[in-house]
This record gives sequence, structure tokens and C-alpha cells, in this order.
Amino acid sequence: MSIIVINPNSNDAVTEGLRASLSAFPDVVCLTLSEGPFGIESQRDSDSVIVPMLALMKQRQDASAFVIACYSDPGIDAAKEMSPVPVFGIQEAGTAMAMCRTDTFGVIAIGQPSILRHRKYMRRLGVLDRLAGERALNMSVDDTARGANTFERMVEVGRELIDKDGAESLILGCAGMAQHRANLEKALGVPVIDPTQAAVAMAHGTILASSL
Amino acid sequence: MSIIVINPNSNDAVTEGLRASLSAFPDVVCLTLSEGPFGIESQRDSDSVIVPMLALMKQRQDASAFVIACYSDPGIDAAKEMSPVPVFGIQEAGTAMAMCRTDTFGVIAIGQPSILRHRKYMRRLGVLDRLAGERALNMSVDDTARGANTFERMVEVGRELIDKDGAESLILGCAGMAQHRANLEKALGVPVIDPTQAAVAMAHGTILASSL
Amino acid sequence: MSIIVINPNSNDAVTEGLRASLSAFPDVVCLTLSEGPFGIESQRDSDSVIVPMLALMKQRQDASAFVIACYSDPGIDAAKEMSPVPVFGIQEAGTAMAMCRTDTFGVIAIGQPSILRHRKYMRRLGVLDRLAGERALNMSVDDTARGANTFERMVEVGRELIDKDGAESLILGCAGMAQHRANLEKALGVPVIDPTQAAVAMAHGTILASSL
Amino acid sequence: MSIIVINPNSNDAVTEGLRASLSAFPDVVCLTLSEGPFGIESQRDSDSVIVPMLALMKQRQDASAFVIACYSDPGIDAAKEMSPVPVFGIQEAGTAMAMCRTDTFGVIAIGQPSILRHRKYMRRLGVLDRLAGERALNMSVDDTARGANTFERMVEVGRELIDKDGAESLILGCAGMAQHRANLEKALGVPVIDPTQAAVAMAHGTILASSL
Amino acid sequence: MSIIVINPNSNDAVTEGLRASLSAFPDVVCLTLSEGPFGIESQRDSDSVIVPMLALMKQRQDASAFVIACYSDPGIDAAKEMSPVPVFGIQEAGTAMAMCRTDTFGVIAIGQPSILRHRKYMRRLGVLDRLAGERALNMSVDDTARGANTFERMVEVGRELIDKDGAESLILGCAGMAQHRANLEKALGVPVIDPTQAAVAMAHGTILASSL
Amino acid sequence: MSIIVINPNSNDAVTEGLRASLSAFPDVVCLTLSEGPFGIESQRDSDSVIVPMLALMKQRQDASAFVIACYSDPGIDAAKEMSPVPVFGIQEAGTAMAMCRTDTFGVIAIGQPSILRHRKYMRRLGVLDRLAGERALNMSVDDTARGANTFERMVEVGRELIDKDGAESLILGCAGMAQHRANLEKALGVPVIDPTQAAVAMAHGTILASSL
Repeated sequence: MSIIVINPNSNDAVTEGLRASLSAFPDVVCLTLSEGPFGIESQRDSDSVIVPMLALMKQRQDASAFVIACYSDPGIDAAKEMSPVPVFGIQEAGTAMAMCRTDTFGVIAIGQPSILRHRKYMRRLGVLDRLAGERALNMSVDDTARGANTFERMVEVGRELIDKDGAESLILGCAGMAQHRANLEKALGVPVIDPTQAAVAMAHGTILASSL
Repeated sequence: MSIIVINPNSNDAVTEGLRASLSAFPDVVCLTLSEGPFGIESQRDSDSVIVPMLALMKQRQDASAFVIACYSDPGIDAAKEMSPVPVFGIQEAGTAMAMCRTDTFGVIAIGQPSILRHRKYMRRLGVLDRLAGERALNMSVDDTARGANTFERMVEVGRELIDKDGAESLILGCAGMAQHRANLEKALGVPVIDPTQAAVAMAHGTILASSL
Repeated sequence: MSIIVINPNSNDAVTEGLRASLSAFPDVVCLTLSEGPFGIESQRDSDSVIVPMLALMKQRQDASAFVIACYSDPGIDAAKEMSPVPVFGIQEAGTAMAMCRTDTFGVIAIGQPSILRHRKYMRRLGVLDRLAGERALNMSVDDTARGANTFERMVEVGRELIDKDGAESLILGCAGMAQHRANLEKALGVPVIDPTQAAVAMAHGTILASSL
Repeated sequence: MSIIVINPNSNDAVTEGLRASLSAFPDVVCLTLSEGPFGIESQRDSDSVIVPMLALMKQRQDASAFVIACYSDPGIDAAKEMSPVPVFGIQEAGTAMAMCRTDTFGVIAIGQPSILRHRKYMRRLGVLDRLAGERALNMSVDDTARGANTFERMVEVGRELIDKDGAESLILGCAGMAQHRANLEKALGVPVIDPTQAAVAMAHGTILASSL
Repeated sequence: MSIIVINPNSNDAVTEGLRASLSAFPDVVCLTLSEGPFGIESQRDSDSVIVPMLALMKQRQDASAFVIACYSDPGIDAAKEMSPVPVFGIQEAGTAMAMCRTDTFGVIAIGQPSILRHRKYMRRLGVLDRLAGERALNMSVDDTARGANTFERMVEVGRELIDKDGAESLILGCAGMAQHRANLEKALGVPVIDPTQAAVAMAHGTILASSL
Repeated sequence: MSIIVINPNSNDAVTEGLRASLSAFPDVVCLTLSEGPFGIESQRDSDSVIVPMLALMKQRQDASAFVIACYSDPGIDAAKEMSPVPVFGIQEAGTAMAMCRTDTFGVIAIGQPSILRHRKYMRRLGVLDRLAGERALNMSVDDTARGANTFERMVEVGRELIDKDGAESLILGCAGMAQHRANLEKALGVPVIDPTQAAVAMAHGTILASSL
């Protein structure tokens, strides 16, 4: 069994972070898409990774499932269309997991512009009625993964989502925030979902079910 | 780690079926709610199990997570409210998993009346825009678990959901249909979701994430 | 003709309040569910009254209609399923009445946690697009029924619902607030709906229609 | 107390029918709008009655509440805006009543074109998620009120709404169908709502509440 | 080709404003409805123009298309029903145009009461999920068309729609604001839609398509 | 003024068809994306054109507006993000135009798979409540543009959308069907929208408005 988690940006630090946050999950292989931009911060960035990502997926005939580890779920439709094995997008999976934990959920985004992109995607998913709100850290992907003040800012933004917007759980709206999940959950007292962990869990369960 | 799966009806054959369908999933304990009715076929049946089920959950301090293995998700709100560990309902989890696999999904129900009950619940979940349709086998819970013609009827109903309603994946709308999942997926060529497996996978991932 | 209004908590003061607020309505009998908790303030409380309430309903073969007088509409589905006569839940009826008076409505809740429970229920009812907002008094059920400052707090919260959220009418989100309806309507200048009165009115009309 | 029910078409036979169907309801006065068209069968017909109807309402200072007894709810917004007493539209009230009786409802329309008009209005009401379906008798307003075959056709159409569309209750989509309510309910075994009775019941309850 | 734009109020200054804002569009004829009120500021005003407007439309057999240039789209359904040529309402067209430019949009209303009227109409249009928010200038129609401070107030309100509500484009919620479109777009840096221009553009395209 | 219409597939016959259907519209330049596939029939095809299409757009500094003439609106978000001038997608524009003509609309698709892709996109647009239905010709893009029986099949499918699904207008769900618009409208008696014409009309109006 092999769950291949693709980081579609070319920042290896992000891939390392994925490996760390998935270390308790069995049979996971994390790959960096070397053709990707250093960070996916625009729609163009997101769309530009699709063709090379599909090519990478085609090479990995050993995959039992794929996880696309970028919160904008780039290429998710094309990947599902062409892949012979299940494909999970992390925005889809994180949202699904949050909706199983609590009635309403909030999302912590990195920057303001991604809020509107996520909203469009959640409308497509038909789940907007469950969204309590989304608020931004207003930091870059790279800063979020490395920065010292990231956690304090996440607590602050998470608290607003809970108190002002009525969020009963929170989704980390970027694969690079994973290291803060456990501490944030402790600090805020509500379920905090790392969407990559959610996607890997669902991929894992799908593969186990197929083995029966 | 211990994922406690509660069959809220008192039919041990159903619990046995759960054990079989979850045999590939680690750390799962399946329990029968002895106070439950033999089958949950009405709203009254569903509501009547809540108080004893909450009592059973209170006793199981060893649980890392609970799964309520009846497709009407009886007592899901009260269970989440009082349980110190995560609780997953199988209708919630099955729907979440299907929504991660394909855009639209269909549901195979046991009897006609449950279709309207499920519809009300999916409206509450805010996911009706993803439902392609729900169709009934028109068999009892017990028959579905044992009956010889069940599989043929499931293929027939599943085919209608795909061809007439546009379903791209199917959810088995009763814990007792689990044994047919793999064969139905093979016969129909679309993802078929056993909701108990989905719930256990999500519970498992939640526990693994907490271990980090 | 006999409209049986059931107070599913065991607080007789609340039942007395119901009698007072329904004194102008003919053919109403108000009962206390002696097996209920003193106040329904959690989901467990709400679910725990269902079985004894159904038993009480079964005994009352003289009923022409039932009204379940708790804003969480406990057991509404099971009650409708088993009762040979019409059953009205007060959240359903209050919402329906408000939607006939104005386009948008607000709800005055007792405590913060009930806001999320109501939201889930209104989503199930498919009426969220009409909800302007819900705000809490942050008092207990018992305080609301007895407390001296209740009215002042209701005016304050109602004013916010109108001015900040755009509510054109208000629903009293607890059977125990009924005594303040008329004064609140005078103070705020918008329709204020007591949901028990709404339910009794609809029950009454249903019975009259059946007599033709 | 005086509930003034306005038939906005000039067909006195329809007003007579209203009187008959409301005979069990106290304090009701039924009026014909003499300036109205003989039957309201187009949007132009519906809009043309607004100005004279508002004038009629202004004259009736004795009204405790108004009911506009045409299923297209002509002038409902303007009437609510200018009337010092509550105003009920029968499509609004019939829909509200049906939604309190069952989860899904169906509507029996007179002609095909009104189905699309009603759909637009129900979308505005935000209740489309509860609509199981609407089907037409394909008869004129006048025929429906008088015609011999009307009842047989109503049974046939109602049966389709229940069996094919999943309607759990039915609304009579024209004030002129009222005489058939009781027999239709008996024939079909589901709640059948006459929307004028529903509106009068809600008006009556509103007035009673104001008397406290 | 002749696109007849009807100002349904009797204020010729508003019609002059329409002519100015449409001066770059070919084949446009702007008419004042002399029977209309001086400004449409209530639902009654809006409904009262329907009958004379339909009469005016009937006289203009030379029309290739009609545009009803009042943001409440008075009589739009009746006009479409009776007109042999296409009819465009400016709220419908403005909303459609905004939805083609950006995902979310905001609306600048003249007065607070119109916000709730527009909301009801946008719910009917089924587009509420795209609305970021609506905020009012709190000025009269006449002031808006003439007033000196109008532009400053529009910038202020527009800024709030963008910054607080997340609007990515803005619709001018009254035909009389047209003169400020270009400057407002420059000042705010997002697309600003004059709904009459949008309606005329869509009418023009419909006529051109018919010529092929 | 120059409206640049990009055919993102490399089939020049389709571009020729666009030129013909837009011949009455001024200032239009139609381009073929030579890097595109011969026909866009999968999600991968659709995604693969984004990068070269953005490059083409960057070269055309002379554009006053762009229209992406493929019904799947490939790259629409990235194009709007990077383009200094307005960009219109034809699915967005066709839907917007249909929603201004009638309350409900239907879509004629080329093949069955595109129906589900379009549904996902219309859910994202938040307009599903207006969709009466979508039905497929079940022909290839190339056949549709050339084939002799195309028109007969379009009449048949359009008739079903009107009679069975309640569509009041129709959208041609592929840029290659444009030549049949006028005849189909004549044959069916409801508005038929060519989405490319709709997009060009809206682009044209946007440019005219900017000139004031």
C-alpha cells in the first residue's frame, strides 16, 4: 500500500513539514513537484501545476491513492478523471472532516485573496451553509511554514472565528500550517483539522476497504 | 487506541456483519446495544436508543473515539455533546466520504420511508445540492443483512441511481449492507461507500493526528 | 375539541406561563411532562424526554391536536409518525408564522449554545435564507420565566437583531418568554411571535378545517 | 374582531366558495374586489388588482387582519407596507402550514403556466428545498370551482405528487379548490391544506395573541 | 433597431440622466412614464406604475427591446409576458453583469428600506450566495441624482462593501446614480456596474443575434 | 475597440463558426489557440489550455476585452486575475443572459459527461436553483459543428428540456452550436442563447460604458 502525497509547489521545506505531520500515518510517500512554483499564491500558480502534476501521477503506477497537498486543490478534477486509483484534495477532505466533527466550521487562511478563492470553491462543493467564516493570517506560505509569530497569530484568528463567527471547529487553510494543529487545538478547545491528515485518513480507509 | 463501534440495534447478526466489514481496520471494537430494538425502522426506534446508548458510551472510558453504526445517526448531537472523545455518525461520514470521491452521489436505502428521513437529515447537513438521488431496495434491515436476493436488487437500484439520477458514487444507506460493498463496486464501476468503514477511517485518522 | 399543549420539562411554573399566554385561545389543555428535566438546556435533555412524551401522547386519546411546547421541538418526528392527530412543534410553527408576517426574522435565544442548535434545525427546515440573525439573552430558562431584568434584556437584544441584523420580525426562542410578547412588540415596533401561540393557532385552524 | 378576506377577482361564485370553506371560522368577512378581472390567470391580471385592492383595504378601518385570497398573493408586499393590521397571503400561509405538517409538500396547480409563477415565488420565499413537486389540473379557475370532474382530476394529480414526487402533504394551489379539501384528504391519506383556511387560522391566532 | 428605455417615475431629470449615461450606446430611446410617481420609494409606488407602463409598452410597436429603468424591476413579469420583444429589468441585468465580472458583488442602495426589498428580489433570482452585502447611502432618489455630496458618500459606502463585506464588484442600486459610475470605478479600483447600461448592452446583443 | 474572442481549441472550423455567428457584432477579432487540443472533451483538455491561453492574452495588449469561447470556461479565474481588461467566460455569460430572459433555463450539452462538469460549475456560480435541466446531444464537438443531423437532434433535445424539465429558455452548451441558434429559436418558440454572442454583448457594453 502506498499513499502518494504530492506537494505541488517546489518548496522542499513544505514537503518536509508534510512528512513530519504525517509521520504517524502508515504507508505515506511525500513528493515535491519540482516543476511547481516556490509557493502557490495566485490562481495562475495553481493552474500552472496541473499538467506537470498529472505527468508525475502517471509515472507513479505504484500508488494506491493520491493526495494533492495544496489547499486550492489544483487539478483535482483532471486528476480524478485520469487516475486509476482514488485521488483526494485536501480542501475537500478537510471540509468533509470538519463537517463530521461539528455543525459549523471556520477556516484560517494565509492571505486575504485566498478567502475569496476558497469561498468560490466551497460554493462549488455546496457546503457554504456550514461555513461560519474564514479569516486570514495575512502572511506568505513560506512565512507560515517557518515564521516565529505564526502560532500566536493563528490563536488570535482562530479565537475570532469561534467568538465572532460561531465556528465550532477550525480547518487549517494551508498545508504548511500542519505543525501547529495540536497546539492550536489545545489552546482553543475546539477540533482543529489539518486537511492533509484528513485526506490521508480518508485515502487510507478507502484502500483498507478495497482490501476486503 | 480503541475505536468503539456501537450497533444501536440488538441484532447480533448485524454486529457480526460490522466486525467482518471492519476486519481490515485496526483497533476496532464492535458492540451491540442490548437495550435497542431488533431493527431501527422508525423514528421512534431511532430516538428510543439514545438514552441507553449514551449510558453505554459513558461506561466505555477506554474509547479513543466512537462510531454510531446506524444510518439514521441516532443521538449523534447528544453523543458529541457529552463524549470527551470524537464521535462519528455513519450517515455524516458516508456522505463526507462520497463527497470527496465524486461530485454527485446516490444513496441505496432499505425502505421507502427512510428516503424521506434521510432527505431531512441531508438538508440539515446542508449537502442536498450534491445528492443525485436516493432509491430503496424495499426490504427489511434483517433481510438485507441475510437475504439471498439482496445483491441482485442492489445492482438494479444502483444502476438506476447512476443512469437515471446521475449519481457518480453510491452510499450504502444501512450498516447491514456492508458485505456487498466490494462486489457492488466491481459490478457498477463507480465508488461504493460503506459508511461504517468511512466513519472508522475518519475516527482512525483523528486519533493518529492527536498522537502527534 | 381539545388542543393538548405539552410542556416537556417538569417545571410547573413554565406550564403556568403557557396557560396564561394561551388564555385567549379556546379548547387548550396544558400539561407538564413530569418525567422531563426541570429545564431543557442540552441536547441530552431534549432527547431524554422523547420516550415519556410519546407515552403521554398515547394516553391522551381525547386530543384533537398536540403542541410540543419546547423550542427545540423534541421528538417532533417520532410524535408526527405515531400520532393519529396533527402535531405541531413550536419552533416549526413560530418560524412559519414569522415568515408569513415579514421577509426576514430574528430569534431571541436564551443562551449562546442554543443558537447553534437552532441554526442546525433551521437548516433542516430549509429556511436559513430568511433568518436575519439569532442573539442570546444569556440567562437560564428558569430565570427567563421569572427574572426581573428579562424584559429589559429582551428589548436590548431585539433592538440589535433589528438594527444590526436586519430582522423585520422577532421570534421568542423559548416557551418561557411568552409573557413579554405584547410589551416587546410595543417597545420595538415590529411583529413579535410567541411560537406556542403560533402553534396553537395553526392547530386550531387545522381542527376547524377538519370539521367542514 | 374582523378578518377581512378579499377575493381579488370579480367572480362572486369564488367568493361564495370562500364563505363556505370558512364557515367554521369565526369573525370572517369575505369580499369580492369588483374592479378585479373575472379570473386571475396571468401576471398582468395579478398586478392589475393591486391598486384597487389597496384602496379597498384603506376603506376597511374595521379590519383586525386581512387575507388576500388568491394563490398568486397579488400586492402582498404593498399591502403589508401600508396596512396598519396584519396581512396574510394565502400562498405564504398555505406553504407555512404545509411545512408544519410534513417535511415535503406538493402543490396542485390549475394550469401549467402557474407552476412556473409559483416556483419563482417559492424561490423568493426561500422554501424550494421543501417542495416535492407541483402538478397542474389544466383547467380554468372557473371550471375548477364548478366543474364536475374536478375532484377526480385532483385525486389523480395528488396521487402523482405523492407517489412520483415524494410529497407528504398537498397544498391546493387556488382559492377555488377549497370545497374538495376534506374529500381529497380522505381519498389520499395525507394532509391536504386549503391555503385560505391556513391564512385565516394564522390571522385569527395573531389577533388572539394581540388581545392578551 | 430601437431599444426603448422606460423611466417609470415621472421625474424628467432622471430620464435626462439616463440619456447621458447611455449616450455611447446606439439606438436607444429614453421615455418618462408621465403617469408614474415623482420617485419610486415604496412598494406601492413600484406596483402602481405597472398598468400604465404596460399600456405605454403596447403603444410602442417600434421597439426591438424594452428596458425598465428602475432598480426594483417593476412589472417585469407582466411586461415579459405581454411583450412580443425582449424585456430587460435593470436589477436582473445589473446582477447578471456583476456576476460575470467577479465572484461576489455588493450593491449601493439609496435608502435602508430598499435593502430588504432588493434582498427579497435577489432571493427570488436565486443569486443570494453571490451577494457580499448591500449598504445604503440614505439619501432620496432625487438627491442622489442631483446632490453634491453624493459621490463622496458613494465612495465611503463602496469602500465598506469592499473592505468589510468582501465585495469584488459593485452595482449602483438605482438608475439615478449612473453619472458617478466611471469616477467611482476609478476611486475604488473594482468594477462598478451601472445596471441600465448592463441592460441596454444585453438588449443590444439580443437584437444583434436576432439579425443573423 | 477590440474584443478578442479566443477559441481555445485548435480546430479552425470552430473559429470560423465563431466568426460567422459574431459577424453582426462590431470590433470582434476571433483567434484560434494553436497550442490547444483539437477539441476540448475532458477536464485535462480544459486545464491544459490555460497556460498557453494566458500567454496569448498577454501578447494582445490591443484587447479592450477578452472572451474565452469554450463552454467549460477554461482558465477563467486566472485570466481575470492577470488581465488588465475585462474577461468574459461564455458559460458565465450565457447563463447570465438566460437568467435575464426567463426564470428557468435549460442547457443543451454535447455529451453526457459534460453535464456533470457543467453542473459542478453552475453550483459554483450559485445558480442551480434556476436550472430546469441539461440534456445531451451525445455527439462530438466536431460533429456538432459539421454534422447534418445536428439541428434535428437539437430540436428533439430542446423540446424535452421545455416539455419535461420546464425550461423557459435554452442555452447552447458549446461554442460550436452557434449556427443553429436562430432556427432553433424559431422551431421551439423560446429564447435560445448562444453564449458567445452573450459574452460579446456584455463585453461590448462594458467597453462602451468605460468610454463615458
